[in-house]
Amino acid sequence: MLHLIIAESELELPPESILDHPAIVNYAKRRGKKPNEIILDSTYHHAALRKLEDGERRGRPDIVHLCLLNALESILNKEGKLRVYVHTRNDDVIYVKPETRLPRNYNRFLGLMESLFKEKIVPKDLGLLRMKKKTIDQLIKEINPDAIFVMHEKGEKIKPWEFGKTLAEFRDPAVIVGGFPHGDFRKVDFGKRISLYDGSLMAWTVVNEVIVNAERYYLP
Amino acid sequence: MLHLIIAESELELPPESILDHPAIVNYAKRRGKKPNEIILDSTYHHAALRKLEDGERRGRPDIVHLCLLNALESILNKEGKLRVYVHTRNDDVIYVKPETRLPRNYNRFLGLMESLFKEKIVPKDLGLLRMKKKTIDQLIKEINPDAIFVMHEKGEKIKPWEFGKTLAEFRDPAVIVGGFPHGDFRKVDFGKRISLYDGSLMAWTVVNEVIVNAERYYLP
Repeated sequence: MLHLIIAESELELPPESILDHPAIVNYAKRRGKKPNEIILDSTYHHAALRKLEDGERRGRPDIVHLCLLNALESILNKEGKLRVYVHTRNDDVIYVKPETRLPRNYNRFLGLMESLFKEKIVPKDLGLLRMKKKTIDQLIKEINPDAIFVMHEKGEKIKPWEFGKTLAEFRDPAVIVGGFPHGDFRKVDFGKRISLYDGSLMAWTVVNEVIVNAERYYLP
Repeated sequence: MLHLIIAESELELPPESILDHPAIVNYAKRRGKKPNEIILDSTYHHAALRKLEDGERRGRPDIVHLCLLNALESILNKEGKLRVYVHTRNDDVIYVKPETRLPRNYNRFLGLMESLFKEKIVPKDLGLLRMKKKTIDQLIKEINPDAIFVMHEKGEKIKPWEFGKTLAEFRDPAVIVGGFPHGDFRKVDFGKRISLYDGSLMAWTVVNEVIVNAERYYLP
């Protein structure tokens, strides 16, 4: 089983300090929600984000959406060989059941994430998505992988198709992909660092490379 | 060079017959646009779509968005070995320059597509996206590929990683992926039909499989 962790994702509710910022207040009103119930989104809350530490990289639920749509609809996942987790900058962890059919529409996805932050489980009966307070260290301990790879621009260079083979040498490897637009991990300082390309890649591109190249060795 | 065509995509302005439907009129008003200037979107125009032929599959700009984000951010594209085209049900063809950095945010992407339908070229100076009236047959004639593969559930079964090798036997192959949510092509009745999996795959999953598996043979 391949365990894919989208780590330190920029998925969060607006922090206390900007809850009364006009960009947040007006957006929330338009959506019929309270300011502390909406997902922070750089497209709409840019002015408010400038007041925050790391403001230039925060509020990127779109990256999580793209990574999840690619992972969940992959052949590897359909064949039951993939588990996907989303870890966020604030140490929320989302467990995603493999059979989850995520909304394709971005605005509906935001609505779903808002429900998840509120209810911690959606939908209540099926529990396709569950959210827990957990650090990435705790998540890793729980998964108990027999290898940990961290996808990193400055990691050891390896051709993507060779990385698939490397993964297949393990029974339960974990692959960590940063769920942020640029910059470095803030806390992930363990695992073997791997770079698939001379240059930066989007998080969802790395997800695609890892999954598709693993299929060759994971599938019959 | 690999030529990827997202064909018969469900990307269009609302047809004449539903321009006065409340679902279209109200949505357009909310966006500050005329009803004939908005992109048809099943998430918002479902009630209007029920009045249309093929209504259950139309209005899916999200599929085009996902396919393009995956293709344009791929390693194959960054290495200059990929050309991407979007062909629509109404025979509009979008030429996408490889260096295009598409909006990651879905709502901004819709805005961009609305500009493109209006102006036929965006942005005016760089011309990253250009739209022409053209059938898929005309587009194929223009590309002049030395092989044509049509990704199709009922095509010849081939492992995704073997398909990459097949592609590499040609200099300028064209790969056609249906840009619709389900059902069959309406007009594409040429090319060699290829199936990568026993079961249906999303258009963007097929795009990922084709591109990533081609990289192994296209890149040094």
